[in-house]
Amino acid sequence: MKYVIGLDYGTDSARALVVNAGNGEIVASSVKNYPRWSEGRYCSPAINQYRQHPQDYIDVLESTVKEALSKCPAGTAEQVAGIAFDTTGSTPAFIDESGVPLAMLPEFTENPNAMFVLWKDHTAVTEAAEINKLCKTYDINYSAYEGGIYSSEWFWAKALHVLREDAAVRAKAYSIIEYCEWLPALITGVKSSKDIVRSRCANGHKAMWHESWGGLPSEDFLTKLDPLLQGFRDRLFDKTETADVPVGTLSSEWAARLGLSTDVVVAGGAFDCHMGAVGAGITPNTFVRVIGTSTCDVMVASYEEIGQNLIKGICGQVDGSVIPGMIGLEAGQSGFGDIYAWFKNILEYPLKNILSQTNLIDAATKTKLIDETCNNIITFLTEEAQKIPIEESTLVATDWMNGRRTPDANQLLTGTISGLTLGSTAPRIFRALVEATAFGSLAIVERFISEGIRIDNVIGIGGIALKSPFVMQTLSDILNMPIKVCKTDQACALGAAMFAATAAGLYAKVEDAQQAMSSGFAKEYTPNKENNKQYRDIYKKYVKLGEFTEKSIL
Amino acid sequence: MKYVIGLDYGTDSARALVVNAGNGEIVASSVKNYPRWSEGRYCSPAINQYRQHPQDYIDVLESTVKEALSKCPAGTAEQVAGIAFDTTGSTPAFIDESGVPLAMLPEFTENPNAMFVLWKDHTAVTEAAEINKLCKTYDINYSAYEGGIYSSEWFWAKALHVLREDAAVRAKAYSIIEYCEWLPALITGVKSSKDIVRSRCANGHKAMWHESWGGLPSEDFLTKLDPLLQGFRDRLFDKTETADVPVGTLSSEWAARLGLSTDVVVAGGAFDCHMGAVGAGITPNTFVRVIGTSTCDVMVASYEEIGQNLIKGICGQVDGSVIPGMIGLEAGQSGFGDIYAWFKNILEYPLKNILSQTNLIDAATKTKLIDETCNNIITFLTEEAQKIPIEESTLVATDWMNGRRTPDANQLLTGTISGLTLGSTAPRIFRALVEATAFGSLAIVERFISEGIRIDNVIGIGGIALKSPFVMQTLSDILNMPIKVCKTDQACALGAAMFAATAAGLYAKVEDAQQAMSSGFAKEYTPNKENNKQYRDIYKKYVKLGEFTEKSIL
Repeated sequence: MKYVIGLDYGTDSARALVVNAGNGEIVASSVKNYPRWSEGRYCSPAINQYRQHPQDYIDVLESTVKEALSKCPAGTAEQVAGIAFDTTGSTPAFIDESGVPLAMLPEFTENPNAMFVLWKDHTAVTEAAEINKLCKTYDINYSAYEGGIYSSEWFWAKALHVLREDAAVRAKAYSIIEYCEWLPALITGVKSSKDIVRSRCANGHKAMWHESWGGLPSEDFLTKLDPLLQGFRDRLFDKTETADVPVGTLSSEWAARLGLSTDVVVAGGAFDCHMGAVGAGITPNTFVRVIGTSTCDVMVASYEEIGQNLIKGICGQVDGSVIPGMIGLEAGQSGFGDIYAWFKNILEYPLKNILSQTNLIDAATKTKLIDETCNNIITFLTEEAQKIPIEESTLVATDWMNGRRTPDANQLLTGTISGLTLGSTAPRIFRALVEATAFGSLAIVERFISEGIRIDNVIGIGGIALKSPFVMQTLSDILNMPIKVCKTDQACALGAAMFAATAAGLYAKVEDAQQAMSSGFAKEYTPNKENNKQYRDIYKKYVKLGEFTEKSIL
Repeated sequence: MKYVIGLDYGTDSARALVVNAGNGEIVASSVKNYPRWSEGRYCSPAINQYRQHPQDYIDVLESTVKEALSKCPAGTAEQVAGIAFDTTGSTPAFIDESGVPLAMLPEFTENPNAMFVLWKDHTAVTEAAEINKLCKTYDINYSAYEGGIYSSEWFWAKALHVLREDAAVRAKAYSIIEYCEWLPALITGVKSSKDIVRSRCANGHKAMWHESWGGLPSEDFLTKLDPLLQGFRDRLFDKTETADVPVGTLSSEWAARLGLSTDVVVAGGAFDCHMGAVGAGITPNTFVRVIGTSTCDVMVASYEEIGQNLIKGICGQVDGSVIPGMIGLEAGQSGFGDIYAWFKNILEYPLKNILSQTNLIDAATKTKLIDETCNNIITFLTEEAQKIPIEESTLVATDWMNGRRTPDANQLLTGTISGLTLGSTAPRIFRALVEATAFGSLAIVERFISEGIRIDNVIGIGGIALKSPFVMQTLSDILNMPIKVCKTDQACALGAAMFAATAAGLYAKVEDAQQAMSSGFAKEYTPNKENNKQYRDIYKKYVKLGEFTEKSIL
């Protein structure tokens, strides 16, 4: 009986899963919030700056693994064969020559520019625009395999932005690392920047790495972009690996800290939604969506299906980024559940700013009352919104309140709500927002299809997939596709466990691990054809409203 | 010492003012809500149907006049020389041959189609479109003096809609009357439809009455519009009168019911905002705005200034509709304060639908808490919204949540909010709505100016003008014009009192009454030139957003 540990490092918290490598059964788990992040440190939401301290990652690594193991039957730790990490991304940080993130050095410990620049940090909008401009005129279009549009959420834009902003970081920065690369390097005891195993997933999708042009963009391209980038290419890497390839075994230090043996194999790192797609049971022609605050959408295609196609406007097509031996395709929406949360936050205004000041009730009752009311807002809105007949759904919104990730990344876009009348109630607006997020999904699906990638069915994972039948049914109706929802709410960590098992040699390939360890499906939504017909008409308005918004910001 | 009574009949309530005719001093007043209306009877907000029962008007007429007189020093009633009414409009009803509104007949007492069709009733959208279509192709463009676009809020559209809807009303309907014509007719004892004195203001602005084509549109035009209108023109009228012309004296019945003498002169009726403009001190080149749930905007121009100009897209230009001897010009916004109230209503959702169900506090406390919180929403939003620097005011909204009255009436238009991000808070949205209502005002001002009507200054009256310095300062900045706010909050009723005094012969003309009886100004807002410059840029976006909305509904 062998076990593996799947580690899922999300935006707010990390989760460790101890999994039976034979059948995928989850033996124990543990979740911890990042302590500094949860206090809001190093972030400036007003300017979309979101940074995370590497010490946060270390703190939760040790505590989650030990807690999860402590819940397992005696002897489990000894049978752990492999560990794998999935993390958010692109979440890069500058490192010194020994591979240590700068914020771990005493002089940089409080400097946000020395920390990991979280995926949703949008401070590099200018730099992304410059990269896109240069890509269009340069001999090689390095963004070709990243959908043709480079995003401010990605590696080079963020690195360049920080270099421009911070002379101290600039002086010390030797190389750059992705979050999903650092954790495997850390626990395998890597002591030099040159020895870090580089992630195919992270670099293929976000750093313009491609075999056809010999890896990263050329030194000439990078220094044309900005002379500040001079020298980095040589100090970075040529080669990348898929996540089924072991990066090493646990260092004695980390074996001790985690209570595991030094024989434990550490797999390569990858992005959460990519491993999540594997955990959810991805196969060719299946569209897997991690639906939470935003969505991350993943497909795999055979070399035959994709041929020489360059899929425009998605977040990239990368050989082996999801399943080794197939092309992984990534897309996503910058805002999904976050848009509902935004509307909820607006509705909470009177409770949190006015009622909170009342003298009519005591402080404890006040807190309870505000919490109780706020916690029920989405439930009430959902109940009322689903009673509204589609033909009365005359509000049309776009879903770009957090920019647009795909199709055709544009972080400068904003959201619009149109068709408002004095009769537009809160549930009617909520319904329009739910429809808008589903229309944003349809736009992505239509792009895949028009670019020659067939989609037969949809698998949903993540918080909203499991918790909101209204949203999922609307999505199924609007996509006109059945949607299966995974039984596990831990698809990402389960996917990591599958990679751990494969890297440890328990399976010959990732698909075998999938076959043996999958959780199966809890629920399937079936599209209502009549609803779909009506939604098609509203979608036309969504498209027109979007075209107007896009034109008017230029 | 002479007194006059000014009666102001608004949307929700009526007000009686006993005024010293020599100096305009308000001796006593009384306000009463319409009893049936306040219960929501005869209305269907979902289809924008708003009807008022004539008995409501009679009930409050008697009670307000008697209550106001009871507060006056002994002997006042004996010194009352005149009475005048202003009312909402276009608010027409069908009458029988004796001039009685059909809903006063036993068989029609509960039939909304037999009642007054309130100004804001939008059930006649189809009929308005047909009128506009016919006007464009007919020999005479009967809408020329009404801004070139006939609205669903007006006389003929409403009359035709009711005729089509209701066979019983159709069979009994002899003629049609406006609210502001009926009350003077009622209390002077008119017993025949033919004897009703017809309002220049109401019919010039809303019934396409114009001297140049011999009064109302021709029988041929009306029957081409719909054969159902056959015969009405002959039973209606050729002549209209300005409101300074007496329509008679109190009938003995009504003298007794009101506690006044039969010598009291009753002036002609007119619309509330027209008499309000007179009460506020209107002169040529002054833009008077009644700013409440919606706005009604009034100008007067000399025959010389206006010449042969046809002012496009406003609610009409009518000789003597405001001040006899000048051309009265009307415009307005379909939504103003109503738009703020709509947003407030959305924010109240959690309080009124979720918190209202809690068991944490007792019912009485709950009611108090909800009321206290709801009553403070606009105050809190205002405080926060005015702290936001204009350069951060990146949300752009249109103000058409209740359609657009002017420029270029279009009741099918809806509102839009654009530029939304996850950082768009309730106060930021509120600020965008305030700016949107002010941009809607600027669009009207720009139309007047481009059509050759000079505007030197603005006078504000109505609830919002008196209560919201933030809204008024924003309006002043966006219009780039000083705005004076009347000292009296009773400009409409005071204006009616001025007409009563003129009709009773106490003054030779309305301007003399204005001179003697005016309240003066409480406050003046001065535009901030720097703010205006920034708002000019946002206004361009408002115009573009509006153009898109307008194009996309067609």
